[in-house]
Amino acid sequence: MSTPGAETVEAVVEAGGAGTGRVMTRVEERMVELVSGHGASLARHGAETITAGGKRLRPLLVCIAAGVPVAESESLVRAAVAVELVHAATLVHDDVIDGANLRRGRPTVVASGGRLMALATGDLLFSRAFAELAAGGEIEPIRILSAAASALASGELMQRDDAWNADVAQERYLERCRLKTGVLFRAACELGALAGGAPISALGRFGESIGVAFQLLDDVLDVTGPPERTGKPRGADLLDGTVTLPLIEARKRDPQLARLDLRAVESAEEAAAVCDLIEASGALEFARYHALSVVADAKAELPTDLPEAQRAALELVADGVVERYS
Amino acid sequence: MSTPGAETVEAVVEAGGAGTGRVMTRVEERMVELVSGHGASLARHGAETITAGGKRLRPLLVCIAAGVPVAESESLVRAAVAVELVHAATLVHDDVIDGANLRRGRPTVVASGGRLMALATGDLLFSRAFAELAAGGEIEPIRILSAAASALASGELMQRDDAWNADVAQERYLERCRLKTGVLFRAACELGALAGGAPISALGRFGESIGVAFQLLDDVLDVTGPPERTGKPRGADLLDGTVTLPLIEARKRDPQLARLDLRAVESAEEAAAVCDLIEASGALEFARYHALSVVADAKAELPTDLPEAQRAALELVADGVVERYS
Repeated sequence: MSTPGAETVEAVVEAGGAGTGRVMTRVEERMVELVSGHGASLARHGAETITAGGKRLRPLLVCIAAGVPVAESESLVRAAVAVELVHAATLVHDDVIDGANLRRGRPTVVASGGRLMALATGDLLFSRAFAELAAGGEIEPIRILSAAASALASGELMQRDDAWNADVAQERYLERCRLKTGVLFRAACELGALAGGAPISALGRFGESIGVAFQLLDDVLDVTGPPERTGKPRGADLLDGTVTLPLIEARKRDPQLARLDLRAVESAEEAAAVCDLIEASGALEFARYHALSVVADAKAELPTDLPEAQRAALELVADGVVERYS
Repeated sequence: MSTPGAETVEAVVEAGGAGTGRVMTRVEERMVELVSGHGASLARHGAETITAGGKRLRPLLVCIAAGVPVAESESLVRAAVAVELVHAATLVHDDVIDGANLRRGRPTVVASGGRLMALATGDLLFSRAFAELAAGGEIEPIRILSAAASALASGELMQRDDAWNADVAQERYLERCRLKTGVLFRAACELGALAGGAPISALGRFGESIGVAFQLLDDVLDVTGPPERTGKPRGADLLDGTVTLPLIEARKRDPQLARLDLRAVESAEEAAAVCDLIEASGALEFARYHALSVVADAKAELPTDLPEAQRAALELVADGVVERYS
């Protein structure tokens, strides 16, 4: 999954003030500590993907949801670490399914250390996320994160339920985006708001919308590629039987796609050909427009009394999510 | 993993009084609710192994650690459910590694629903465990369970670090038993004691010892079989590269085993032949004796002022763990 560019992230860190950089540095240190403190195998096979990659978008959201300028605090660091650990756990487990060799240009845990290693590593990251919050002594962050982690898994199960079903409804697809991606973005904002005394439910809704848009655009990228950018062949979702908005919409527009038997798409070439048809149908513009509307609504619905600096930083993140597509 | 017989479990439930049965029934209901409330796939593929199998030894320990007669309470049910969910999550994930088709005579989640299904199911069970405790509103149980869940994963990683290393030290093997099995038994006792106002650290130590003995005897069973009882071929650990006490000790006694290259053991027949050598060396009696000593010490170290009925129930569990070997 590609993330907003380094420039956006830098801009958000700058907008958040000096505290943001300090929190993010401590998050990074905590991740390194964790990966290096659990035996030789994890240090050897896990360090690369877990500590060296990613833009840390979720920890960044935790920071700015707390309030701008960001005030470094133990509870903020814990919340940021916990959210990123849950995210990292799902990535490590996802790679077991996909048998992916590379993530962010580095060998995945499963490729380097095998399935046992990747499974146990994901489980460890998962449980350390809750240990991190439990050490803080507050129950509400744990409620938020455990609900979000359950939603992530439910989203995966829903995706499996819907696999190869090209007739899946758009509403159900959007609910899957919410569960798979929106809810952890929501949790990031809620945890930050909780730590910083900002309005929890309003920022939570903002986070969820941004997360849904992120997933929508990711699903568009799966169709457009190019592989050098996404790190996977065009149409990887099609080959997995994962039906996303571009295909749902394209099937309404193109009778050939409406008749398509997904299971008959077996090679990368066939997948690319279906991607071309989806593109030609105009469905990508539709999906992109949907994502942009979600982001625009999210920005418009931010509370009017939100401090201007915090609003500006949140809008930067929202714009970053959109720009990842451009 | 075979568990103490149904008779032992029944005896413990009886010793715990009517409250025990009520708590155990509610645990079962909660597990069914959970598995049936997350989509068609989980209900179809997960229900069998998750809700229909197992003696629920850990929830039982939670109950009697709280005090005998067991007083049904919401916090006790939550603790019992949470511990069993973590255990179930690790089983579902273990089956992904082993590619096991059957567990307790029923199809595993991975065999029935595939890897994605099994991974997401394990992740869901994991996060529901913490959600269950978070709903109770107390932080200490979450500290206990997140530390235990981390230890389980660390134990798996340690096992991977030590794979194929026949020279692994006995102390390191015992530490692995503690992490893989002892710590969750400890957590069960601590959570129960916490809910019931019983002495937490003393019962925790008891639980950990019982768990270590359980693992030791399980490792003996891997050598002795028979497969009809254990559900796996004799010497499955050898084929995995997992070095356990029977082999560690047998290598000290039999020069042929001392020279053995584990990676050369490739077939079930070769594994069975090595099992025969281990048996002939007398190492199984050594390992069994070690397990019995651990259990005897655990019983002897129970606090002298523990109410008699509770002590009797705990001793029943301890005896049950030992009897599973006989």
